[in-house]
Amino acid sequence: MNDTDDSDRELRVSKIRNGTVIDHLAAGQALNVLALLGIDGSGGESVSVGMNVPSDKLAKKDIVKVEDRELSQSEVDVLSVISPEATINIIREYDVIEKKRIERPEAVTGVLSCPNRNCITNADEPVETRFVVFSDGLRCDYCGEIVREDEMATHLDVS
Amino acid sequence: MNDTDDSDRELRVSKIRNGTVIDHLAAGQALNVLALLGIDGSGGESVSVGMNVPSDKLAKKDIVKVEDRELSQSEVDVLSVISPEATINIIREYDVIEKKRIERPEAVTGVLSCPNRNCITNADEPVETRFVVFSDGLRCDYCGEIVREDEMATHLDVS
Repeated sequence: MNDTDDSDRELRVSKIRNGTVIDHLAAGQALNVLALLGIDGSGGESVSVGMNVPSDKLAKKDIVKVEDRELSQSEVDVLSVISPEATINIIREYDVIEKKRIERPEAVTGVLSCPNRNCITNADEPVETRFVVFSDGLRCDYCGEIVREDEMATHLDVS
Repeated sequence: MNDTDDSDRELRVSKIRNGTVIDHLAAGQALNVLALLGIDGSGGESVSVGMNVPSDKLAKKDIVKVEDRELSQSEVDVLSVISPEATINIIREYDVIEKKRIERPEAVTGVLSCPNRNCITNADEPVETRFVVFSDGLRCDYCGEIVREDEMATHLDVS
């Protein structure tokens, strides 16, 4: 089974030997994915990124290939919140050795900031944000504020 | 004359038909370059990025290919401040039609924030930052604070 034969042609980002391929990301989400994974280039990881590339499944998509790193299931779960259509393949010696299940987690802790300014998580208190995940959005576990799916990227709290 | 025959093999980011190839970036600078160019994926631009990829000239390098966009000389000048070794080629129909001169500008306005907290540019006044460029760093035109070359990326003021 081969990494991404078809996407090689269309994506301009070619195969990796070992690592993780995050494909079919919603267009424009690649940099959010890098931020979620804590990748800014300073750590020396070899990473290839395609943004807004043509796709068969989607009109346009993003793709991220991280070499020599295999994402854990919890990392995959968080990715699924910002891009539920993503496919995640673990690659060894150019072959897909594992397709990660994409499952939305029940709750997301410490990843998004609450848009409600009066929420206790915005009050300089030592309280980590926590959102309960629904099919089309998230609800702050502290103040009940709703974050719709299309608003999530704006509230990513990564540094 | 061909885009990047050799880097295609080593970089895993292949040729583009039209646009700009920013190659031989200092490793870890790709995301800063995207930020400087105002690219976050939401604008729909097709962009390929290679981070920390092997290079002949450098131990490791970054590369950014922006499709259907030709950088202006002033954009190139700003890039040269964060990565003076970069090469910038304008591509049309897969051929390099122009190699941009990399020249350090005499001054950089509105791109970096001053590390001196007491500088007027940090005082909520309508004053744009301005740094005079030297061979190995920058000097704030308002307070005289020095930013060394290896500190620049930390003070990038892009939003």
